[in-house]
Amino acid sequence: MQRGLFISFESSEGCGKSTQIARLRERLDAIGVEYLVTREPGGTPIGEKIRDLLQYDAVGEAMTAESELLLFAASRAQLVRQEIEPALAAGRWVIADRFLDSTTVYQGAGRALDSDAVEAVNTFAVGNCLPDLTLVLDMDVAVARARAKAASEAEGKHDRMENLDEDFYQRVREGYQKLADREPGRLELIDADATPEFVSDAIWSVIQQRFQLPADPV
Amino acid sequence: MQRGLFISFESSEGCGKSTQIARLRERLDAIGVEYLVTREPGGTPIGEKIRDLLQYDAVGEAMTAESELLLFAASRAQLVRQEIEPALAAGRWVIADRFLDSTTVYQGAGRALDSDAVEAVNTFAVGNCLPDLTLVLDMDVAVARARAKAASEAEGKHDRMENLDEDFYQRVREGYQKLADREPGRLELIDADATPEFVSDAIWSVIQQRFQLPADPV
Repeated sequence: MQRGLFISFESSEGCGKSTQIARLRERLDAIGVEYLVTREPGGTPIGEKIRDLLQYDAVGEAMTAESELLLFAASRAQLVRQEIEPALAAGRWVIADRFLDSTTVYQGAGRALDSDAVEAVNTFAVGNCLPDLTLVLDMDVAVARARAKAASEAEGKHDRMENLDEDFYQRVREGYQKLADREPGRLELIDADATPEFVSDAIWSVIQQRFQLPADPV
Repeated sequence: MQRGLFISFESSEGCGKSTQIARLRERLDAIGVEYLVTREPGGTPIGEKIRDLLQYDAVGEAMTAESELLLFAASRAQLVRQEIEPALAAGRWVIADRFLDSTTVYQGAGRALDSDAVEAVNTFAVGNCLPDLTLVLDMDVAVARARAKAASEAEGKHDRMENLDEDFYQRVREGYQKLADREPGRLELIDADATPEFVSDAIWSVIQQRFQLPADPV
């Protein structure tokens, strides 16, 4: 059986990642591709518990940057071996809502941890399981931040990550841009400051070209 | 202010670690040394939550070795920065009931993960905060295992770690012995197959000699 394709989505908040994942699912449904969608952190029962710890800091103490990074990595290590690898081996595609680049960028570039150490932890967590393609949704920081804030308020949610300042968002954006420069074979920067339809078409076009899929029947 | 001393205890289960830590505390109380006792995993609210996840595998799925190691490291990273470093800086001693060598041995030697990767994760978690002295309680595997089992049954506890087989215990013992050979400046192997009094005296003697403490007034 042919191994499935592994595609991850990355961006700071407010860049339309959820919308674009939903649109990609529609396309895959239309052409009969089976897929698994995962989210980071989480995606397994253990991972969801780790996600709760990370997002709400339920015990009210200041989590260190190192502990945060290791918890993300622990969730991912479980996800890779319990869900992602078995799905790919069974020929299903995997669409990941964030993967290891989130750690590199958010905890590395964002919080100024040593990048070699972050890479060592990342590598340990995922083993050989890297995405075939990572789509980085890129847009102006002020616009993305305003969109993230509006979405968060509409849901009545309070998320620790969203309290961070504009400078942090800027470093995250630049972190992703640097990664895309460094690994053009895996990462593709997508201009996300356009209509959802336009962005969705751009993404599908990249996927078709990269993996030499037949022309779109949809 | 003079920085406190950092002493960790390591061993497989059943070697008398808890007893020896209690005895060391009595000695330190007697000579007026202030100290903090930590346990691994745990020791902070976040760490205790991680401990629960690790020890009881509450969600009933098979935790991967990689995820397990990263959770131990996350708990430790929090403990180091939230408790251990501040205590040492304030001149208190820190007595650690397990520290990074447990990860090296249990997850590394015990479960055959790549040792360089384990070391990289360990180093990331603790930063520069290594024990001044690590006391490894060493004894025959069959004896230690029988003692651990009896203690566990007496407490009516069921612990995931204690279901592991004798071969695992043997690899753990050898893992500690190898570490002690490799880092004699930090680790000291203590023969734990003797009366608690004898072992306690041996430990105190090592501490006095290593740190040139005045003769025991107790």
